[in-house]
Amino acid sequence: MIETPPLVDQYCHGVLRTELGLGTFEAQLIHSAGPPAAGTTFFDTQTGFAVRRWCPPLLGLEPHAAPARYLARRRELGPAESARRLLRGSDVAAYLVDTGPIGDLTSPKELALAADAEAFETVRLELLAEQAADTSGTVAAFLANLAEAVHHAAAGAAAFACATPFACAAGPGRADGTGLDLDPDPPGPGEVRGAAGRWLAGRPRGGAVRDPVLLRHLLWSAVASGLPLQLHTGTGDPAALTGFVRATEGLGTRLVLLGGYPYHRHAARLAEAFPHVYADAGAGLGRTGARASAVLAELLELAPFGKLLFSSGGGRLPELHAVGALVFREALARVLGGWVAEGSWSWRDADRVAAMVAAGNARRVYRLDRP
Amino acid sequence: MIETPPLVDQYCHGVLRTELGLGTFEAQLIHSAGPPAAGTTFFDTQTGFAVRRWCPPLLGLEPHAAPARYLARRRELGPAESARRLLRGSDVAAYLVDTGPIGDLTSPKELALAADAEAFETVRLELLAEQAADTSGTVAAFLANLAEAVHHAAAGAAAFACATPFACAAGPGRADGTGLDLDPDPPGPGEVRGAAGRWLAGRPRGGAVRDPVLLRHLLWSAVASGLPLQLHTGTGDPAALTGFVRATEGLGTRLVLLGGYPYHRHAARLAEAFPHVYADAGAGLGRTGARASAVLAELLELAPFGKLLFSSGGGRLPELHAVGALVFREALARVLGGWVAEGSWSWRDADRVAAMVAAGNARRVYRLDRP
Amino acid sequence: MIETPPLVDQYCHGVLRTELGLGTFEAQLIHSAGPPAAGTTFFDTQTGFAVRRWCPPLLGLEPHAAPARYLARRRELGPAESARRLLRGSDVAAYLVDTGPIGDLTSPKELALAADAEAFETVRLELLAEQAADTSGTVAAFLANLAEAVHHAAAGAAAFACATPFACAAGPGRADGTGLDLDPDPPGPGEVRGAAGRWLAGRPRGGAVRDPVLLRHLLWSAVASGLPLQLHTGTGDPAALTGFVRATEGLGTRLVLLGGYPYHRHAARLAEAFPHVYADAGAGLGRTGARASAVLAELLELAPFGKLLFSSGGGRLPELHAVGALVFREALARVLGGWVAEGSWSWRDADRVAAMVAAGNARRVYRLDRP
Repeated sequence: MIETPPLVDQYCHGVLRTELGLGTFEAQLIHSAGPPAAGTTFFDTQTGFAVRRWCPPLLGLEPHAAPARYLARRRELGPAESARRLLRGSDVAAYLVDTGPIGDLTSPKELALAADAEAFETVRLELLAEQAADTSGTVAAFLANLAEAVHHAAAGAAAFACATPFACAAGPGRADGTGLDLDPDPPGPGEVRGAAGRWLAGRPRGGAVRDPVLLRHLLWSAVASGLPLQLHTGTGDPAALTGFVRATEGLGTRLVLLGGYPYHRHAARLAEAFPHVYADAGAGLGRTGARASAVLAELLELAPFGKLLFSSGGGRLPELHAVGALVFREALARVLGGWVAEGSWSWRDADRVAAMVAAGNARRVYRLDRP
Repeated sequence: MIETPPLVDQYCHGVLRTELGLGTFEAQLIHSAGPPAAGTTFFDTQTGFAVRRWCPPLLGLEPHAAPARYLARRRELGPAESARRLLRGSDVAAYLVDTGPIGDLTSPKELALAADAEAFETVRLELLAEQAADTSGTVAAFLANLAEAVHHAAAGAAAFACATPFACAAGPGRADGTGLDLDPDPPGPGEVRGAAGRWLAGRPRGGAVRDPVLLRHLLWSAVASGLPLQLHTGTGDPAALTGFVRATEGLGTRLVLLGGYPYHRHAARLAEAFPHVYADAGAGLGRTGARASAVLAELLELAPFGKLLFSSGGGRLPELHAVGALVFREALARVLGGWVAEGSWSWRDADRVAAMVAAGNARRVYRLDRP
Repeated sequence: MIETPPLVDQYCHGVLRTELGLGTFEAQLIHSAGPPAAGTTFFDTQTGFAVRRWCPPLLGLEPHAAPARYLARRRELGPAESARRLLRGSDVAAYLVDTGPIGDLTSPKELALAADAEAFETVRLELLAEQAADTSGTVAAFLANLAEAVHHAAAGAAAFACATPFACAAGPGRADGTGLDLDPDPPGPGEVRGAAGRWLAGRPRGGAVRDPVLLRHLLWSAVASGLPLQLHTGTGDPAALTGFVRATEGLGTRLVLLGGYPYHRHAARLAEAFPHVYADAGAGLGRTGARASAVLAELLELAPFGKLLFSSGGGRLPELHAVGALVFREALARVLGGWVAEGSWSWRDADRVAAMVAAGNARRVYRLDRP
C-alpha cells in the first residue's frame, strides 16, 4: 500500500453551525441553478453516493445508509459533534480556509478546533474590495483602504484568492472564459481611479466587484504581495488566463489554478509549461466520487508531481471536507499503486509522489512550516 | 450482475428498406465527408468492429465474421428479416424515432412492428418550417401554417428536435459552436416576419432553414409547446448553448442535449447545473465500441443519475440500433458492476441507477406512460 | 500477446552530439517556459519516470535508477554509444526526421546509422521561407527561390511540416488556436507579393516567419507538391483548422495532425470526418508515461484504424525516441490485448490493427516503400 501522510487541504470553506433538514442538506451537494428536477434528487449523484459511502461509518452507521437515516443520525449527534467526527475521520493535518462570502460559516480557528488540525486563512480579493468600498467615502480613501487591507492580509494569510479571474476581460466574453480577451497587464493608476470612481458611484451597498480594471488591479496587488494567488477557473478553460500567466512569470509569484474540471488536463498543462503555475489535485475528486481515480490519473499525465496540490473544495457541509479527503486518499493509492504493480513506477517513487501531492507541495508553496 | 430493464431508445431514425451492397453498407458506418481514404475501410473503426462483434450472432454467424460474409448472410435473409432479428435481439421496449429528413426510411409504426416494441415520434423543427414554406404563398400564411404544424405535432409527438441549434448565432461563428454568440431570447413578431420574408424570397424549393432568427423562433415555439426539446450538439461544445439554457430555465420546458462527444463531460456538467437540462447517455457509445464503458463512465461523473437517458443514435442500418443498445447494456453493467465490486456503490443503488438511465428517466421525461 | 512489427516513427528530430550534465539533460525532458520551480525537478514527471523506467536497462542498469546514477553511466559510455544503444533498443525500422531548426542535431543519415534503421526527411516550410529570405535580395527573387526550394524538397523529402499553422489567422486570435478565424484559401499572387515585401523589409536576419499570408502561401505550396503535410497543433484545438481541412479536401493531399493532447480526441474526430486527414498515435504517449495506454485508447475511439500513425516526437535526447517507442509498444499491446481478452475484438483484427498503427499506415501515407 502507498503511504500517504496526513493531508493539507489547500482550499475549503468553513461549515454551517446549524442543524440541517433533508432538503437543506441535499441542496448543498451539487452546484445547481435550482432545485432538483421533478422525479430526481441530488442524492442520486456521484457526490451523493460518495457521501453515503464514506460518512455514515464516521457517525456509526453502515456505508450506503439511506439519506433519511443518515440525516436522522446526524440530528441525533447534533451539528457540532457530527462535524467533529467527520473532520477528524479524514486525517487532514492542515486546512487553508477561504473566508470569502458564502454565508455564516465557522472561522478557520473553529474549523481547526473541530478537526484537531491547523488552519490558515485564504483571503478573497473581491471581498477586500467590497469591504473597502463599504467603509470608504471617496475614491482616494477606497484605494488607500484597499491597499492597507491587502497589506494587512498579506501579513497574516497563507494565500490570496480571486473567484472571478475570467471577469477581467477587456471586452465581452462568455461566462466560462471561452473567447475572452484578457488584458494581462496591471492597469495604470489613472485607469484604476477612473474604474473605482465609476464602480463606487453605481454600486449598491454590499455590491460585488465585477469591473475588469478593478479585478486586474486586485490581481496585481496580490502578485506584488508575494503570497501565492489562487485563481478559480470553475468549469472554464484555464487557457483563457495564459496572458496573465505569461505576464506574471519570473516575478516571484506563485499561481494556483483551482477547479478546472472538465478542463483539468489543460490546467495540468499550464502547470507543466510555467514554473510559477500549480494545479489543484482535488479538482472534482469529491464531486466525481467513484470516478475520482480516473480524474486524478488524468491530472497526473502532464502536471509535474511537484506542482499538484490536494484540496477538498469542501464548504458548508463537513461531509464535503471528509469525502474530498477520503476519496482523494483512496484514488491516490489506487492510481499510484496500480503503476507500481505494473512496473511503471517504483514503490519508492510512488510513496514520494504521494507525500508531495498530499501535503509536501502545499507546505512548500504556502510556506506553512515557517516559524 | 446488474439488472437492466428493456431499454427506451430516446433518439434514433428509421431503417432502410432496400438491400445493401458492401459499399453502401460501409458508407453508413461513420460520419465522413467522403469515401474511405485509399488503403482504408470504414469497417476498420470501433463502429465497424462493434457491428462485427454483435450482429453476426443475431443472424446466425459467429462474432467477428468478415464483412463480406456478414453482408452475404444479410442478403440471404433479406433486409426485412435482418432488421427484424437485429432489432428484436437488442431488448428495446420503446423507440423515439426522429422523422427528420434522412431519406426513405421506415416510419415509427413500421419500426415498432419490426422490433416488437413501442415507437413514438420526435418531430424536427427545421422540417416543419421547410414543409410550411413549401406549401405557403405568403409570409403570413407561412407563419400561420408553421404555428398550426407545431401545435399539431405537439399533440401527437413525444418530443421536438432541433438539428442545428448552433446556427442560431446572432453573429458569425464556427460550425462547431465555438465562439458563437447566441442570442438566447425569443425574437419579436416583426423580427420573425422580416426573417421569414427574406428566407422565403431567397429559398429554392426544399431549401433548408439556416436563418438564426427563424431557428430561434422555432426553438421558442417548441418551448411554448411544453414538449421536451432535443438539441443536437454534434461534436460542438454545448456550453455555446448556455445563454438559451438560462433563458428557458423555470419555464417548464425540458431540454435534452444529444450528441456531445468529445464534449460529453461538458454536456453532463450542464445537466448538473440546470434542473431542466438532460444529457444523452448514448453519446458515442455505439460509435466508440470497445471504449463505450470508458465514455459512459465519463458521463456518469457529473450528470445526476436522473438526468441521463439512453439512445442508440441508430438510423438507416438496423445494425446501428442493435449495436447502440447492446454496447450500452454491456457498458452500463461493467461500469456500475465495477463500482459495486470495489465498494463504491451498493448493489441496490446500482440496479436502481441502471433502471433509471436505461428506461425510467426517458419514460418520465417524455411521459411515455401517460394513458 | 499482440504482435507488433518494427515501428515507423513518423515524427522526430535528430539527437544532440555532446555530453550532457544533469541540468542540461533535465531541461530537455518537458516543454517549460523556464527552469523547474524551487523544490521541484523535471525528473518528477511522467516523462522523467518513463525515462528512468525504460532507459537504464538499455545502458546496463536496473529500471528506475536515480537520475545522477543514470547520467553517470551515460557519460561513461559517451553520447554516441548511449544513443546507439537507446535507439537500437526500441525496434524502430524507419524514422521521419524533421530537420527544422532546433539546434545542432544529428542529420537523418547519422540517425539512421546510429539506429541501424532507415531515415527520411521531413522539411519544415517555415525554414524554407527563412532560408530563401536570407539569400534573396528582392521580393521576386525570394518568391522564386522559395518556389524552387519547395520543388527541390518535394523531390527528396517524405513530407512537409508546418510548425505554426494556427498563426495563419486572418485576424487576432489566441496562441492555442481558440477563437481563430483562419482564412482557409490560398492567397492571390499580389497578396503574397505584398506580404513578402513587408516581411522582408522588417525582418532581422534569421527572423522567423509569422505572417499569416506567407504561412498560407507555404501551406498551399506544400498542398500543391503532393507530399503529405504535417500540421503541428501543439496543445491547441485542431478544430481551428477545419476551414483549411475543408478547403483541401479532394485535392489529393494528405494532412497529418501532430500533437493534439489534450485535444487528441478532437484530432481523431477530424481523421474520422475527412478522408485526407490523419492523426498522430504518438500524441503525448511518451510524455504521459504510465498513462500512455489511457491516452492511446482515447485516440482509438473515433480515429479510423487506417488513419492513426505512431510517432515518438523525440528530439535532442535519444532517450525520448526510445521512450516514445517503448511506451507506445507496451500501450498498444495492453489496449488491444485487453479488448481481445474481453471479447470485443478478435486476435486477428487486433494484430492487423497493431501492424497498421505501428508501421503500415505510415508506409502507405508517406510511400516509404516505393523504389
